[in-house]
Amino acid sequence: MTRPGVYVALVHHPVRGRGGETITSSVTNLDIHDIARVSRSYSVSRYFIVTPIEAQKDLVAHILGYWHQGPGGGKVPERAEALSIVAVAPSLPSAVDTITGIEGTAPEQWTTAARSTAQSVAWPEATQRLRTRTRPVLLVFGTAYGLADGVLASADLRLAPVRPGGYNHLAVRSAVAIILDRLLGDEGD
Amino acid sequence: MTRPGVYVALVHHPVRGRGGETITSSVTNLDIHDIARVSRSYSVSRYFIVTPIEAQKDLVAHILGYWHQGPGGGKVPERAEALSIVAVAPSLPSAVDTITGIEGTAPEQWTTAARSTAQSVAWPEATQRLRTRTRPVLLVFGTAYGLADGVLASADLRLAPVRPGGYNHLAVRSAVAIILDRLLGDEGD
Repeated sequence: MTRPGVYVALVHHPVRGRGGETITSSVTNLDIHDIARVSRSYSVSRYFIVTPIEAQKDLVAHILGYWHQGPGGGKVPERAEALSIVAVAPSLPSAVDTITGIEGTAPEQWTTAARSTAQSVAWPEATQRLRTRTRPVLLVFGTAYGLADGVLASADLRLAPVRPGGYNHLAVRSAVAIILDRLLGDEGD
Repeated sequence: MTRPGVYVALVHHPVRGRGGETITSSVTNLDIHDIARVSRSYSVSRYFIVTPIEAQKDLVAHILGYWHQGPGGGKVPERAEALSIVAVAPSLPSAVDTITGIEGTAPEQWTTAARSTAQSVAWPEATQRLRTRTRPVLLVFGTAYGLADGVLASADLRLAPVRPGGYNHLAVRSAVAIILDRLLGDEGD
């Protein structure tokens, strides 16, 4: 049976700054590339770059254009294939709307955080829930110092930290790779 | 019982170019940072940047200096902590010699590749072997299009590809994150 799709969103607003204040972070070129490649490797349906800033949306569109229509696709076709799943969204609700349009039903929103909370779901349970999903799932990742509290509070599921306890300062690129492998590593292509 | 250390090497020479020829790749700033952070998160003993090029070694030393002695450590101490495990080595044998000096015994060299070979060891077996290791283990990763054949041929163990079969074009940063999580995710800090 084909399950509903799994989606990834990388959020640049609203996220936390170093002091916990809500900020808008800048889009990083390697976040686009690395996360597109790992998302494609794990058969993610679409990877949303979430930013409200027009100039940042234009930047992402420019980079994607190089790979979709420009010379990049001819030189490194497997990179163009990865970037074909990347889309820009002005907000998280907008990405949710797009997914709802594609799938015919709204996705569950699963958030990730380096901070543990009482509501965090352990990895074996989360993996099992993903494997038996009946609705699409949107995995929401925060840049800077993590997703704003409001995003965490409205999530359908909060994933446990990747490395609770010890040193826990992964790049978001690394966290996405590990989390997709944990959740989707055993699912067929 | 405390096991011997696990080490990571990121090799810039000898690696494969797009056409399979042996090349020397350039050091990438985010390779230093992302892999240092994930290595520190999984309690890797030391992370070697392997490059024979003097100017590249100087570049890495300059970046590390900013974090070790310069202003970076004051501003983002957890980043300085991650980068404290980074070292530069002019060659893979040199990194092996350093580890032998630290541990008192030569490390096993485990290689990683996107290409599968008859000698590839499946993940459950590799994880079990790592958990029960009696010698240090050096995990060897290639930049560009992967480790040169000579490095693969002389390895003590070849890990299976992360994503055999389907799309398999991960950034090396993503591959390191996934592989450390698979091998060391259940090992205590």
